[in-house]
Amino acid sequence: MSPAYADNLGRGRDVSERVMPGLEAALAARYDAWLPGFSEWQIGTVYGGVYGRDGADLKTRQIATVAALAVLGDAVRPQMKIHVKAALDLGISPREICEIVMQMALYGGFPAAINALNATLEVFEAEGLEP
Amino acid sequence: MSPAYADNLGRGRDVSERVMPGLEAALAARYDAWLPGFSEWQIGTVYGGVYGRDGADLKTRQIATVAALAVLGDAVRPQMKIHVKAALDLGISPREICEIVMQMALYGGFPAAINALNATLEVFEAEGLEP
Amino acid sequence: MSPAYADNLGRGRDVSERVMPGLEAALAARYDAWLPGFSEWQIGTVYGGVYGRDGADLKTRQIATVAALAVLGDAVRPQMKIHVKAALDLGISPREICEIVMQMALYGGFPAAINALNATLEVFEAEGLEP
Amino acid sequence: MSPAYADNLGRGRDVSERVMPGLEAALAARYDAWLPGFSEWQIGTVYGGVYGRDGADLKTRQIATVAALAVLGDAVRPQMKIHVKAALDLGISPREICEIVMQMALYGGFPAAINALNATLEVFEAEGLEP
Amino acid sequence: MSPAYADNLGRGRDVSERVMPGLEAALAARYDAWLPGFSEWQIGTVYGGVYGRDGADLKTRQIATVAALAVLGDAVRPQMKIHVKAALDLGISPREICEIVMQMALYGGFPAAINALNATLEVFEAEGLEP
Amino acid sequence: MSPAYADNLGRGRDVSERVMPGLEAALAARYDAWLPGFSEWQIGTVYGGVYGRDGADLKTRQIATVAALAVLGDAVRPQMKIHVKAALDLGISPREICEIVMQMALYGGFPAAINALNATLEVFEAEGLEP
Repeated sequence: MSPAYADNLGRGRDVSERVMPGLEAALAARYDAWLPGFSEWQIGTVYGGVYGRDGADLKTRQIATVAALAVLGDAVRPQMKIHVKAALDLGISPREICEIVMQMALYGGFPAAINALNATLEVFEAEGLEP
Repeated sequence: MSPAYADNLGRGRDVSERVMPGLEAALAARYDAWLPGFSEWQIGTVYGGVYGRDGADLKTRQIATVAALAVLGDAVRPQMKIHVKAALDLGISPREICEIVMQMALYGGFPAAINALNATLEVFEAEGLEP
Repeated sequence: MSPAYADNLGRGRDVSERVMPGLEAALAARYDAWLPGFSEWQIGTVYGGVYGRDGADLKTRQIATVAALAVLGDAVRPQMKIHVKAALDLGISPREICEIVMQMALYGGFPAAINALNATLEVFEAEGLEP
Repeated sequence: MSPAYADNLGRGRDVSERVMPGLEAALAARYDAWLPGFSEWQIGTVYGGVYGRDGADLKTRQIATVAALAVLGDAVRPQMKIHVKAALDLGISPREICEIVMQMALYGGFPAAINALNATLEVFEAEGLEP
Repeated sequence: MSPAYADNLGRGRDVSERVMPGLEAALAARYDAWLPGFSEWQIGTVYGGVYGRDGADLKTRQIATVAALAVLGDAVRPQMKIHVKAALDLGISPREICEIVMQMALYGGFPAAINALNATLEVFEAEGLEP
Repeated sequence: MSPAYADNLGRGRDVSERVMPGLEAALAARYDAWLPGFSEWQIGTVYGGVYGRDGADLKTRQIATVAALAVLGDAVRPQMKIHVKAALDLGISPREICEIVMQMALYGGFPAAINALNATLEVFEAEGLEP
């Protein structure tokens, strides 16, 4: 038994509550009846096992995730919107988010980036943000 | 603390030793100095948190993984070869593996499937298998 | 002339009628006016030339397809739903389908798998299935 | 300073006005407040720096773009529809567009191609085209 | 029985011998022992069922394929080289091939396009072509 | 004529010489004979039109690019290595690079991330870096 591995779940809960309040409960309500333990596994794996690690701070990690999702384009549109919201909540500026998404036109192509930019602007509009 | 989550590591070690003997040690030797805890996280997440779950047996899971990797094509060639070997070790027949890879031409395109088929045949040749 | 190749169409019709009743007629009505022969080509290629082959049974093939589509994520959402329905009709349990989709988080990333899981649950709900 | 590079913007404006009338104004209205200069950069890069180059004519370039978007599937559906419309406006026949999209089943898989074909037919219907 | 479908194999043999001489024999030697009928199925599906169709000429189809493969990048490098060679053999100029590959930076990103461009130049060098 | 657009080339040269010394000359030597103006277009588009923009600093942009390339996996291995080197040169720590690449297992799957991690460690080894 590795205490370090087991700690992922507790740390994951701390991090996910901070970045995406209510996420574990939402995952549990939606998926655990069909997939027992899914919500714990995702929180422990993603937020404890990765986001909560040392070596890179949360803002840097959130920028990286926004970049990754922008490259993947509209196939991950719901996640793009959730992570743009999380980026804003962490204090990353709307302008910086836009810049990173635009940059992804170079790596995932213009259509993926434009679609991701549209998802981003929808979040800004829902948050009442203006340029 | 969730005992179920913590159990993932132990179960993951059992499963990975069965399917890919020596994997955790190899991961630890290669990655843990740069990424502390990486090998435990991967074994617990992948082999305990997924492959070791109830609800689908290992053969079915291995077929699914071979299919997924064939769709992703040569971008995941090293993993394709590792998982074809694991499929053989689980008793999946060479013919069945080939059939699944060929089928993936329909979902990931012919080039991805042909490249995956070539990787598959390289494993068969290394194992001394003949049609 | 190869009788074996020509047989693909007949066999494809048998298999597609069993797995997806009405598919050829639907393809013909939608596409053949613009693309003469498209429905025959798809039925012969996909269902005769692949699904109807020996060497892997239909359940195994359907698991592989569900896995492939889950990796491709929301870019293939309509097909995901059609193939989850076909998997249920072949007698694959809802739990096993969910397990395979969840597993694909490892190969196509969490967003692709979660989106595929949502598409899967929509099919379950339309079918009146409960955990 | 390279006059050739600077010329990209003027040429891009000529080409984009011809192929997609109103595009730069639409881009500017939607994105430039958040991303200063975005519309000029896209017009100069895409339509001046690529489409307006010698060495391949606009019809050939548009065929290539339709093929690329069909391979990328529903993740780029809005762009697919825009470029199918542009292809029609350049005089490429509806049949030829369908043929190229169907061909992409071989390289990006059937689901991507079928989804792209559906997007294509939606454009034809909006344009009042019949087989 | 559909004579039209059965004709795909004969037409596919004609087209593939013209575009890629020796392909069916190479496929048969490499794959048919493990996958009975694979070479016939691929020739009939790809070259008879698609490339040999009316509605788009072979040059246009080859341009579309080169574009698709460039978007898919180094995951399909072997196929990229084969199809660049086929494009040259059909009389498409080296310059036009380069233009189409460069254009794909817009849709699949710069890395995919640059890697495809490198594969293209390797073919040109093997053919003794110079700018 | 937009002076701002024309400025992209000059700014791109400044930025690319800082981040990837010798890049424009290497691009020109390799590609400009086949694709006149390619090197200027890439430097102006990528380094002037994106990396040299206000709104996000170079370190943040480089993190985003490393993330994007890790998601794309071995299909962009040469670019991954070049950008890991650039990240190190900008003062991003080896540990932080590894953390971001590992994180991408969540978005592009484990095989893509592991292959990207291997490319990363090859760069570290070539640079004589130790954990």
